Formats: sequence, C-alpha cells, structure tokens
Amino acid sequence: MRLISFVSRNGQSGYGAQINDQQVAHLSAVLGHRYNDLKSLLASGLEEAQVALNFAPVLSTHEIHLLPVIPNPNKIICVGLNYETHRVETGRPKEAHPSIFTRFASSQIAAGDPIIRPRVSTALDYEGELALIIGRPGRYIKAADAFNHIAGYACYNDASIRDWQRHSHQFTPGKNFVGTGPFGPWMVTRDEVSDIESQTLTTRLNGEIMQQARIADMIFSIGEIIEYVSSFAPLETGDVIATGTPGGVGFKREPAVYMKPGDTVEVEITQVGVLRNPIADELV
Amino acid sequence: MRLISFVSRNGQSGYGAQINDQQVAHLSAVLGHRYNDLKSLLASGLEEAQVALNFAPVLSTHEIHLLPVIPNPNKIICVGLNYETHRVETGRPKEAHPSIFTRFASSQIAAGDPIIRPRVSTALDYEGELALIIGRPGRYIKAADAFNHIAGYACYNDASIRDWQRHSHQFTPGKNFVGTGPFGPWMVTRDEVSDIESQTLTTRLNGEIMQQARIADMIFSIGEIIEYVSSFAPLETGDVIATGTPGGVGFKREPAVYMKPGDTVEVEITQVGVLRNPIADELV
Repeated sequence: MRLISFVSRNGQSGYGAQINDQQVAHLSAVLGHRYNDLKSLLASGLEEAQVALNFAPVLSTHEIHLLPVIPNPNKIICVGLNYETHRVETGRPKEAHPSIFTRFASSQIAAGDPIIRPRVSTALDYEGELALIIGRPGRYIKAADAFNHIAGYACYNDASIRDWQRHSHQFTPGKNFVGTGPFGPWMVTRDEVSDIESQTLTTRLNGEIMQQARIADMIFSIGEIIEYVSSFAPLETGDVIATGTPGGVGFKREPAVYMKPGDTVEVEITQVGVLRNPIADELV
Repeated sequence: MRLISFVSRNGQSGYGAQINDQQVAHLSAVLGHRYNDLKSLLASGLEEAQVALNFAPVLSTHEIHLLPVIPNPNKIICVGLNYETHRVETGRPKEAHPSIFTRFASSQIAAGDPIIRPRVSTALDYEGELALIIGRPGRYIKAADAFNHIAGYACYNDASIRDWQRHSHQFTPGKNFVGTGPFGPWMVTRDEVSDIESQTLTTRLNGEIMQQARIADMIFSIGEIIEYVSSFAPLETGDVIATGTPGGVGFKREPAVYMKPGDTVEVEITQVGVLRNPIADELV
C-alpha cells in the first residue's frame, strides 16, 4: 500500500491509500473510529487496512490536501554524514558511530507544499533522503531484526538553512526551520519494496540531477542505524528516521547553489516515489 | 502556584497544585473535562486554575505518583555551554549564538524516579539546569517580550551519558537515554518568582555541592534564548527549554565523578524548588 495522511476540503484530517494517480481509498472513513491517525493505524499492523481497502469510499486526489506522511511522529531522528561522498565533501572525519540529530514535527511539510526560505537566511539547501517509518516498537533492536520494525519507506527532503546549521557545533537550528521538512507524498509499506538497499536515490533541482546514490552506499546500514538508535531511545510506532544524504549538496558546490523562490526540488527513490516541492519566500 | 502532573493510584493521570508538602489540590478533577493535561491547562492562561484552587478536592501526596512536570511537550530544547565556567571546563570556543540540541519526551522522568544508568555505559553525569515552560505560543519573539511567553520555571537535570554524547559531533545520543531527564517536582508559575535571574542554581551529589551559579551568569540570557529559538521554530504551549548547566560537571573533574547506583542527586533553584533523584542500574 501507498499510505497517505491528508486534510479533506471540510478541514477534517484523515488517512488513506493511494489507488492510482487520481484516486485514494479513504481508509479513515471506515477505520477512523478505531485508529485516529496513520500512526495509530500503523500500530494495528495493517491487516485491517488491507481488508478495508476493498470497501473504503474512494476520494479524488482533488478533494484532499496532503499532509506530511506522519504529521505527528513522537521522534524524527536524522542521520548525518551517512554517505561517503557527502562526508568527504563536508571534510568531516570518519566516525565509528552514526551522527544523530533531530527534527521537530513542526518543521515538516507535505509533498507539493512550498519549502519556506525564511526571512533570516538565503542559504536554503536540499538533502534528499530515504525515511524509515517505524511500525513495531522496540528497544535494543538487533541489526538482523531491524526490518521487522519498519512499517515502510518514504522520501524525505532534509532541507537545511546552512548558516544557522553552523551557528555552533550542534545542527539543530539549521535543521528545524518551519517549512523545511518535506515528507511524502506517501509511505510505501515494506512488503511492496523488493530490496530497499538496491534502490536509487536521486535529488533534482529544476530537473537537473544534483545527488544520486544507491541506498546500499550508506555508511551505516539501515540495520545498524536502528540498532544504534534503539540503544538509547525506545523506537515507537510512527517514529521517523531520515537516513542521511549523499554527496552533491548545494552549499559544497563551486559556486554554492541555494534554492530560491521559483525553483522546484524533487527527491526520487525507485520503488518508493517522487517527492516534489516548490520553493517560496516566507511571507513577512 | 506550584503545578504538577501525576498518576493516581488507580492509574489515572491528572494534574494539580501543590498546597504544602503533604497536600495537592486536584485541579484535573474539576477542570479535566476541559483541559486534558497540564499542557492544555497552561494554554488556558491559568485564571480558571486559580479559581479552581478554592474548591478542588485535596489529595494526599501519598495517593499520587509524580510525572515529569510536562510529560508530553512537543519540544524539549536544550542550550549547551551556556555558563562561562562550563564552556571553559569543556574547552569549547566562544560562539556568537546559543548551541542548541534536543531531548525526546521519552527520556524524561519525574522527581523521585531513579535516573537509569544504562547497561551500555557507566559514564552517567549530572547537569543541573533551569527549565523554562512556555505558556503563550509565538514565533520571532523579541528578547524584551520573552517573559510574556513563559508560564513558569522548574528544575531540570540534563543527565548525560558522556561517551555516547561524544560518539560524533552531535550530542543527541548521550542526551536521550531512557530515564535520564528528571524534570520537576513542580513548575512554579512565573508570578511567584520575584526575579528569576537573581536566583541560585545548585547541584548536589550525595549532599556535596558540585555546581553552583546564579541564573544571571548565563552567557545567553533567557530573553536571548527565546528570541533565538523562536526564530527557527514556533514556540508552543508546554514546550520546555533547558537553559544550560554551570561548571562543575563530573566528567571534567580529576578524577572524573560519575553517578552510580546508591547515589542521590539534587538540583535546587531558589524560589523554584528541589529536584531529587536516586540512581539505579538498568534492569537487564
């Protein structure tokens, strides 16, 4: 299934499954009384969602406005410097452990929403990433068991305000601006991706390829990331792990390339989807 | 008011106001149908809570188990290296901006709960801090207006797993272990503290003073922190800002002092309260 969160025209939030480019099965219309949001649907294990697909009312995509796939995760965990090409371009040393920073849910936006260039900076950069969405909760998860805790995959753009990211040694400010965390358009459930590590991640700015890597190029694998993170924090259903970005970011180019109003950025992962967002200036 | 969150013996969560050492006004018994938790009570502006104090049922402190003051904040924002004595002992350079990292709510515990020394490390250190609890939400808040957005103050112990904090340049892992974020026992509403910057913060380990500073010793003031943070993220009611720790942390002592089972750590802030926690090993 390709699962989405959305707001309908009457302002009601819901969730569903994309049937094709024009149609969505309105799962929350039949399951909403038991599962309030997509996060709680994931906790159910998705068997009921699979059944409900057969009789859920069908919505046109014109009737809904997408939300970030999981609008309200308890945790958004980001892995820094997890592709060798990106580590080298940033001049950071090799580390024995993943570099972990975080996002607040308030920074997330949906596919199609404008990424906001804030009034305080023009150093707005893209970072195409694979996001893991946790299904089964756990602590001290072994790498070998990690995939059993993943509900599905989505595209993420860990868009960054580079000057604020380097105000100190901690990345938090530059990674948490309002309107900088595109996440979507949907999550693909794990059963529908034959081998996530064989997939290709591509970031395009105005149609031009800026980043491209195989998921298998990650320095710390999906299993290793989940083992590491779950050693300090319990993973809960709906938690999001953005697994890092490959080389080719804008601020390490000569000259630097920053995103600006009028641009369109896309993050594509084969078998997962395409996440497309325009750029807009913050309204003053 | 000294406001608390708690679980009663029947497993029901609630909130109230400490009347004295033995008694609590059970505010959620009369306001719970309108304000589900202390976070939503804060959003109400507290006038109703002040009235409800006069007729709320009284509970004995023996009937309740404290929770972290705000068990479910949308954001926990931590300021690093915000006292000169601590910056110097860690050998970090002066910075023009606050260093910001984050905690997940899953790391928080209440006053009296054991701080958990995890099975993966013995490098468990204290960090006594003043926590601000946001009342009125806002973005781009000016320093001069910052106090209008603060609902109250509490003691925080930003207990840290030092080796995991330095696995990479990002502090997240060492700051987010389960059972390492004591927060309480209560929050004192802003009107009850005459001048927060004149208050003294003291951390004691087994009765011995390990850290002591005036709140006014902070490098970035309360107003400056709120102005900075609200420039990248909207502050929401119930958000928690831990404002940094003074010099005297255990891992920079010769020899290093780490907390271990049997120890008791206290964070005291004059006019705010005393936050006391024992240390326990994680159950394997």
